[in-house]
Amino acid sequence: MTAQETFQISPVGYVRAAEGSFHIEILEPYRPALKELARFSHVMVLWWAHQADNPEQRAITTTELPYAPGIEAGVFACRSPYRPNPIALTTMFILDVDVENGIVTLPWLDTEDGTPVLDLKPYIPISERIRDVRVADWFAGWPEWMEDAGEFFAKNEVNMGG
Amino acid sequence: MTAQETFQISPVGYVRAAEGSFHIEILEPYRPALKELARFSHVMVLWWAHQADNPEQRAITTTELPYAPGIEAGVFACRSPYRPNPIALTTMFILDVDVENGIVTLPWLDTEDGTPVLDLKPYIPISERIRDVRVADWFAGWPEWMEDAGEFFAKNEVNMGG
Repeated sequence: MTAQETFQISPVGYVRAAEGSFHIEILEPYRPALKELARFSHVMVLWWAHQADNPEQRAITTTELPYAPGIEAGVFACRSPYRPNPIALTTMFILDVDVENGIVTLPWLDTEDGTPVLDLKPYIPISERIRDVRVADWFAGWPEWMEDAGEFFAKNEVNMGG
Repeated sequence: MTAQETFQISPVGYVRAAEGSFHIEILEPYRPALKELARFSHVMVLWWAHQADNPEQRAITTTELPYAPGIEAGVFACRSPYRPNPIALTTMFILDVDVENGIVTLPWLDTEDGTPVLDLKPYIPISERIRDVRVADWFAGWPEWMEDAGEFFAKNEVNMGG
């Protein structure tokens, strides 16, 4: 193999999670980038799964699925944080956007305080909302809408990763 | 400002686009990561907007929207390739997955031959399919489903970016 290209990325902000409060704090230079985000109900958050940023976990290509015992899937076929580039993606409802102070308040994200945030994108139906979807058998019986995720995960104690 | 953290990412593959053919070629070490991806109808492709990877364009925080004249939006409120971390996201129908040869055949992606691909994730309704979505006014009249995007974009000559 020839030498691989590498690219540099840097956090645009960080997850701030405390008891009863959850938000993303955007670093000062990037706060103008939040302008008009409040016009959207949902945001797609790209975050850096920093605890998986090590050579061993970045070399993982397949994994046993916690929600489908016995199935070994490629990391491109699941949402494991262990992947060659540990960029996780979570789509979430927006509670509030404070452009001046760089605060995006969310109900929750499936990651912890201090997680670096790489990018925010508005959720736009023409790009992301798919009418006819087929998924792997092991998702049979799972909800078909993100709004039903919270109740399902609470009942079933499973986690999708990012 | 204190010094920013930086993270390293590398392509897991490249877009290969030619007349009448469109696919992602996954580099050899990452091919096992495609295992079971064929069980999903749609994939979310994270790609590197390499032409926007320069200090000038990465410093852009707001942009005039090509599809909403007169509106200046933050880059976190649109899908412009000009953003601090030029990671683009495109959700697309999967035509074929060849794990052994590392080929993911797609109808199309809104980028060109040679574009570095950073990650693939399966599209899973519980994570991405939102029943009740609100978008900015300038999307009034746009289709509410990704399946209707092709016809709409062909008629209206607009582009969302990544």
